[in-house]
Amino acid sequence: MLSAVLLVAVGFGLAKSDIISSLQGPETAYASAKELQQAISELREALPGKVTTETIALDSYGSSSNSYHPSHPHSVVVHAQSTDDVVKVVDIARKYRVPIVPYGGATSLEGHFSGVSSGDICIDISAMNKIIEIHEDDGDLVCQAGARWEDINSTLKEKGIPLFFPLDPGPGATIGGMVGTGCSGTNAVRYGTAKAEWFLNLTVVLPNGKVIKTRRRARKSAAGFDTTKLFIGAEGTLGIVTEATLRLAPVVPTKVAMSQFPSVEHAVSAVQEILNNPNGSHIQCVELLDDKMIIAINKAGLTSKVLPVSDTLFLKLQGTDSSIKETANAIKKIFQKHGSSNFEFAATQQQADELWENRKYALMSTIAAAGDSSKVWTTDVCVPVSRLPELVYETKKDLAQSGLTSTIVGHVGDGNFHAIIPFKGEEDLPLVSAAVHRLVHRAIALDGTCTGEHGVGIGKKEYLVDELGPDTVALMRSVKNAIDPLNIMNPSKLYPGDETIPKDH
Amino acid sequence: MLSAVLLVAVGFGLAKSDIISSLQGPETAYASAKELQQAISELREALPGKVTTETIALDSYGSSSNSYHPSHPHSVVVHAQSTDDVVKVVDIARKYRVPIVPYGGATSLEGHFSGVSSGDICIDISAMNKIIEIHEDDGDLVCQAGARWEDINSTLKEKGIPLFFPLDPGPGATIGGMVGTGCSGTNAVRYGTAKAEWFLNLTVVLPNGKVIKTRRRARKSAAGFDTTKLFIGAEGTLGIVTEATLRLAPVVPTKVAMSQFPSVEHAVSAVQEILNNPNGSHIQCVELLDDKMIIAINKAGLTSKVLPVSDTLFLKLQGTDSSIKETANAIKKIFQKHGSSNFEFAATQQQADELWENRKYALMSTIAAAGDSSKVWTTDVCVPVSRLPELVYETKKDLAQSGLTSTIVGHVGDGNFHAIIPFKGEEDLPLVSAAVHRLVHRAIALDGTCTGEHGVGIGKKEYLVDELGPDTVALMRSVKNAIDPLNIMNPSKLYPGDETIPKDH
Repeated sequence: MLSAVLLVAVGFGLAKSDIISSLQGPETAYASAKELQQAISELREALPGKVTTETIALDSYGSSSNSYHPSHPHSVVVHAQSTDDVVKVVDIARKYRVPIVPYGGATSLEGHFSGVSSGDICIDISAMNKIIEIHEDDGDLVCQAGARWEDINSTLKEKGIPLFFPLDPGPGATIGGMVGTGCSGTNAVRYGTAKAEWFLNLTVVLPNGKVIKTRRRARKSAAGFDTTKLFIGAEGTLGIVTEATLRLAPVVPTKVAMSQFPSVEHAVSAVQEILNNPNGSHIQCVELLDDKMIIAINKAGLTSKVLPVSDTLFLKLQGTDSSIKETANAIKKIFQKHGSSNFEFAATQQQADELWENRKYALMSTIAAAGDSSKVWTTDVCVPVSRLPELVYETKKDLAQSGLTSTIVGHVGDGNFHAIIPFKGEEDLPLVSAAVHRLVHRAIALDGTCTGEHGVGIGKKEYLVDELGPDTVALMRSVKNAIDPLNIMNPSKLYPGDETIPKDH
Repeated sequence: MLSAVLLVAVGFGLAKSDIISSLQGPETAYASAKELQQAISELREALPGKVTTETIALDSYGSSSNSYHPSHPHSVVVHAQSTDDVVKVVDIARKYRVPIVPYGGATSLEGHFSGVSSGDICIDISAMNKIIEIHEDDGDLVCQAGARWEDINSTLKEKGIPLFFPLDPGPGATIGGMVGTGCSGTNAVRYGTAKAEWFLNLTVVLPNGKVIKTRRRARKSAAGFDTTKLFIGAEGTLGIVTEATLRLAPVVPTKVAMSQFPSVEHAVSAVQEILNNPNGSHIQCVELLDDKMIIAINKAGLTSKVLPVSDTLFLKLQGTDSSIKETANAIKKIFQKHGSSNFEFAATQQQADELWENRKYALMSTIAAAGDSSKVWTTDVCVPVSRLPELVYETKKDLAQSGLTSTIVGHVGDGNFHAIIPFKGEEDLPLVSAAVHRLVHRAIALDGTCTGEHGVGIGKKEYLVDELGPDTVALMRSVKNAIDPLNIMNPSKLYPGDETIPKDH
């Protein structure tokens, strides 16, 4: 029984011993290789037909073609179909001290669902995708955590229910993953993020095997601190979310427009002014695509229209015809003042959809434009909106000096900035990784965060102490240790100092 | 040294020993009477001129004329002027194991700032009321936790900055108290509650004496679970908030209207329909005042206009003139369909202010109407909006059967319901208390919460296990124990099972 977990604090400059100890997990030993095999046997008995150890599954569930962080295959994958299934897995994992890694839409970019080197159980909740109840009168809906936000919205539309769930992260994301990463998307300007009040309550399987509901279905509650919020952004490290009650918003008609600017600074100052306008609440989305992104879109040719090459704002306005018209008039005046040369509505719904796809499929356009042999590294940071021009300017300069090109898209209304950096082969990875490292430190120096919506995972955890300070990170760690004392829930993600290096592997 | 804390689980039916132990705090001993005196001497040395033990202060800071829960005077009151002062108090409190009770605007209704029977330090942060930085471009502001929301909004107005902080709880509430109770108010329909994204970050003095910032100033972050949210609704049990960065919203012109309905059911179904209308985002507030409340307003005569006696909706619409007009037309049609006999805008700003004051000062009108010798018990619960008519109907019937009258006001757009129950003397308290008890259980049975915005304090903690289940409450307790292992932060509030009964007092 040499199996043990060695906890090493890394990734921050002032790694004093007291800081290290305050960030460490508890000194638990994970399952030995033999115990892991026992756990897998027990899983097969408890969940017949739902357990796989085929190499191809273990590999594909443990890595992502969209991220370049060190990945590791899982030891076993369990395809859960119910909360009871998840409880069975958690109970066996706890008995043998085997880490659990939750898996949903697999759209995350920071290595959240990579396997754990000491051995782990991947719990795939993507088949738990049912809508359980729709309460149209109350504007809410109960679903399983494997449901995808796009499917939820399609179902509501098909049923003729004039409501939708407004969080819109990457295509294919599931509710469980959206909770875990604390997601947002283009609609955050109007509707806020996962950390607002869209998740009314969650059903969670805790590390101790208990199934809890975090809250009741009422829209508001002041009954203590909000346990729902504990799990939002926790990346599966505090429990496995199996169901959620979602608050819905009324569907409001929208129109899509775009406007070209002489520079990012001009575009950002224009956005600041329109968001403070009395008509600002009609702005559902405002997205910035830089000139490089427009070139990539034109080159990729995924949409029929060739766009003018310029730093460009894409807007989605919402409301009745007359309020959109009034808002557009107010915006046009402000945009002209800030140097915009053009403001153009999509004339038809088809044009609007196509125009918006330019934004939604920015990643794909960048990949397509870079050519078949290319890969891309996608990252995001977020700063106070007024700091965004400086961040963009310095980052473009830095990338150019590194010989890298990058397209830039941003949820500019929130100060959330995405860089999509193409590169040719593995040998370029250190160069790209170093540029991302400098970008993150630049954002933190501007009172920003290492990630606005992609989450921490493996890729961003080294920045948490710099961003939040050691005492805030120690607070997070103490909550983690209290809820998951055996550190079995998605270990080696999110928390700095949590590197699992078992002695006998 | 007989001083000890005896922890007793009370207030829920199935008080099995395992439930009790999972809800208890750690077995720590608080300061003896002698140690408490030493702590007070040390406070006087460390904070000269800021410490008082005058009986009148100890009493008045420990009780509220608006709540009837058992109250207790404090042992000492410290008037903090800075985060450093708060650190000094926390360090001394920890050294001698003396409970700390935070005190801000003193507007809370559930005994949050009552003294602790074993002895305590009341830390008054109301003098920490400065606005530190205003970032107009980014739409945020940094202030001390003793600042009042009304003063913040007046200051912004005086400076000509077209932004405001939209959380509007009771007049006089401070930012620290608003964080602590997880407040909301009439604006929650449009802007959400304290648990949304209005608090960008907090400066907190933890029980270990460390000063943390929970986040950075960026509008969004996905850097782990949201430690800001840990403190929202925690009622000062996890740390003392000393500063906050508030997100601000643009000031939008408003108009006030009212409409009479034949019954609460009619009014609620009308509200459900208008909130799902594409114009719904122009509804800033929608408040229900029942016929008894209207009678009280007319009788109190605090405003000049006599209102028609009927279940009445008060609305605040926001937007440009044309969008308010368009919204009002949509609302009128819907209201007529649901039986409304009248829809009337306030003609002037003065009329609008006066009309709105009827809602804002409902508590005062009820007191005034009940006569000088009367007291009132104010309570709130919240249910899914569709359950509100049943809650109101059953509650009115129950109160009538008990020989009590009550005025009812509700943030009807959120399903949040306030009963204001007048009574004559102490001898009626058990009758009122029993009626409130039944009201809370009625709300919980309707998938609601024991409190929508007033918080738990002493008054509602017995309901937490019924509402959330023992495992969710045990989760809250484990977080509390991890952050505050000596249980010095506002003990005997919020968490069931946390009754401090020291042996030597």
